[in-house]
Amino acid sequence: MAVYQEINAPLRTIMTPGPVEVDPRVLRVMSTPILGQFDPAFTEMMNETMVMLREIFQTKNKWAFPIDGTSRSGIEAVLSSVIEPGDKVLIPIFGRFGHLLTEIAERNGAEIHTIHCEWGKVFDQQEIIHEMKRLKPKVLAIVHGETSTGCMQPLDQIGPACRELDVLCIVDAVATIGGTEVKVDEWKLDAVIGGTQKCLSVPSGMAPITYNDRIEKILFSRKKVEKGIATAEDLESIGQPIRSNYFDLSQLQDYWGPRRLNHHTEATSMLYALREGVRIVLQEGLAVRFQRHRLHEKALMEGIKAMGLELFNDTEWKLPMVTCVQIPAEVDGESVRNMLLEQFGIEIASSFGPLHGRIWRIGTMGYSCRKENVLFALSALEGVLIRHGAKLNLGKGLQAAMDVYESVRIMIK
Amino acid sequence: MAVYQEINAPLRTIMTPGPVEVDPRVLRVMSTPILGQFDPAFTEMMNETMVMLREIFQTKNKWAFPIDGTSRSGIEAVLSSVIEPGDKVLIPIFGRFGHLLTEIAERNGAEIHTIHCEWGKVFDQQEIIHEMKRLKPKVLAIVHGETSTGCMQPLDQIGPACRELDVLCIVDAVATIGGTEVKVDEWKLDAVIGGTQKCLSVPSGMAPITYNDRIEKILFSRKKVEKGIATAEDLESIGQPIRSNYFDLSQLQDYWGPRRLNHHTEATSMLYALREGVRIVLQEGLAVRFQRHRLHEKALMEGIKAMGLELFNDTEWKLPMVTCVQIPAEVDGESVRNMLLEQFGIEIASSFGPLHGRIWRIGTMGYSCRKENVLFALSALEGVLIRHGAKLNLGKGLQAAMDVYESVRIMIK
Repeated sequence: MAVYQEINAPLRTIMTPGPVEVDPRVLRVMSTPILGQFDPAFTEMMNETMVMLREIFQTKNKWAFPIDGTSRSGIEAVLSSVIEPGDKVLIPIFGRFGHLLTEIAERNGAEIHTIHCEWGKVFDQQEIIHEMKRLKPKVLAIVHGETSTGCMQPLDQIGPACRELDVLCIVDAVATIGGTEVKVDEWKLDAVIGGTQKCLSVPSGMAPITYNDRIEKILFSRKKVEKGIATAEDLESIGQPIRSNYFDLSQLQDYWGPRRLNHHTEATSMLYALREGVRIVLQEGLAVRFQRHRLHEKALMEGIKAMGLELFNDTEWKLPMVTCVQIPAEVDGESVRNMLLEQFGIEIASSFGPLHGRIWRIGTMGYSCRKENVLFALSALEGVLIRHGAKLNLGKGLQAAMDVYESVRIMIK
Repeated sequence: MAVYQEINAPLRTIMTPGPVEVDPRVLRVMSTPILGQFDPAFTEMMNETMVMLREIFQTKNKWAFPIDGTSRSGIEAVLSSVIEPGDKVLIPIFGRFGHLLTEIAERNGAEIHTIHCEWGKVFDQQEIIHEMKRLKPKVLAIVHGETSTGCMQPLDQIGPACRELDVLCIVDAVATIGGTEVKVDEWKLDAVIGGTQKCLSVPSGMAPITYNDRIEKILFSRKKVEKGIATAEDLESIGQPIRSNYFDLSQLQDYWGPRRLNHHTEATSMLYALREGVRIVLQEGLAVRFQRHRLHEKALMEGIKAMGLELFNDTEWKLPMVTCVQIPAEVDGESVRNMLLEQFGIEIASSFGPLHGRIWRIGTMGYSCRKENVLFALSALEGVLIRHGAKLNLGKGLQAAMDVYESVRIMIK
């Protein structure tokens, strides 16, 4: 029976906005034998991971640890631990993942207020600040890098404004962490959620988060210790209890902190992977890594344009690790994607909602963000588009990308 | 700086009630390069995993898939998807993990009713059935294998009674799945949650669940499609919306089913691990595997008794994969555990609540359930106890265990 066969996965070139190729060094550590969750050798790795996550988030926050679930589990952990029923939450939406924030906040009983801008644009920061002044929400929840549209929302004025207006600023930086600046402290962001399967090049299954004492104060007011392990000193909470046990940050920080209070069983192999992934990021250095992402983005963009295709989001607010390409009118976008996968083993993405069928999204994230991947993707795209009858500037795309690589002197990986 | 060192984990002999040693074949597949979540090669693996999970759960249920989180995430996914605020939920408690069920049900707004029995005992099934008749709850939530006390609750009468009384029977089989019978269909269990890090010998980080059409009917009544990806045909739900997005089974089954509606990004490497883990279980065969767990349990128990120690739970309701040992009055249980870890690299467990400091818990689960582990643990325990001044029948423990192994003719792994 087919289902009893061993795993025999094809090797792909993954140029989507995530999940992307995992660094082989990360894949290798996942084969490390398991340790018990309270084994001192393991708790030390947990602590080391926290130290390294703080560097990645550019923060001095006490708390920086992963949630054991995929990226949206990190978003839900933060939102469900902070939002009490009836709380006013402002969510500016500029793509699919803004809708996800409303979806999660709504289920936690928030009174939700949204403002929208056209998919493909971002907000003027003053517009959001103005809306906060008017609405006086408890929380602003906003996406940093919106992969569905390839746009990045500036936050450097929004964060400080939140602090001034006493609004909690919660940021989904799933797509941006490890690929471009996410200055948690400098931008005064109160809670930030990162993703593993994008620029960190770790498999999906963990969500690193960080939050400050403004968030922790809320957690303390809602704190609850499990009946099975509570002691007399564990008083009843005074705020409304958090609606989830699994995502209860007040319990999770007791597990990640010196008290080591039993909660879930930490996902050992995923923690190994995350620890190795952030170690590799710090070894490369944040500045060098961000520069690398910009370089390959540029080569890809120049290649696409020289080929005769149009970019959807060649703007100052473009997300550096996602390049959106307008699908030429004469070709079927899905047919092109399928041929890329079947003939070349290359995966690129389509999009959602109003952009479905209109753009392809090509990711240059983490370990997938390499010269050979960019050059291969450009060559393959040209070949497939010719096969689909598109009119192109033959041979130009690859040359333009190679020109970009030759024009720079920084180390190219 | 220490935190930049590569992972260098000690190799442990893990004899706890989980997490336990992972099968090396499972560790190996975790190094397999990533596939995109909608890559046909990957969705086929998802489907194959569902087929194999059905066999493990001994069910014909349409739905059997993992939740991307640790075991309790599976419990929370089921309870939060089924329980609407105000629903009556009956929870019989015979150890710590019964409390966890109340904890999760409570946060979902359930009207909770508990019945208790002494830690170390289980319920007479008729007592629970009687209580259901009196209370008429919507849900019975109960633990199958309670690792905190080493006890296993019989369910073969409870399940059919639930069906007759139209109560939904939800079972936490985290500790038992893959190690002893969990007959989902025969016992008429409506939803069952398994664990990976115990008898399946897969790392913590996924929670396989299964549920039937009685549960699915509730999901349909509460169904909601995310705004970012909904189409006109996705009608609004009529029941109260599920309080979690991440744990919304109605959305998760659309992701695992043929519609493949985008939800989270499946945890690729963990899925590889789970697929390999269940493949290994089915290759061994359920009956042989359960017999193996019983054999090593017997060797361990005989060894412990011959040494002169007393078992806490040498009863007909003993959980086959957890053996609880009374800590002799003259020794400090934690000091013994520490010496076992530091000198022998062996991990055994303490317990919680009323049993804290009174018993050690020794697991014989999955890949950790091997002859050499049992013999090593017995030898080490004797050595450490002598070092702690305990009076023992010297040399007897190992001999008794070896006698057990010599007395059987089944294949010993």
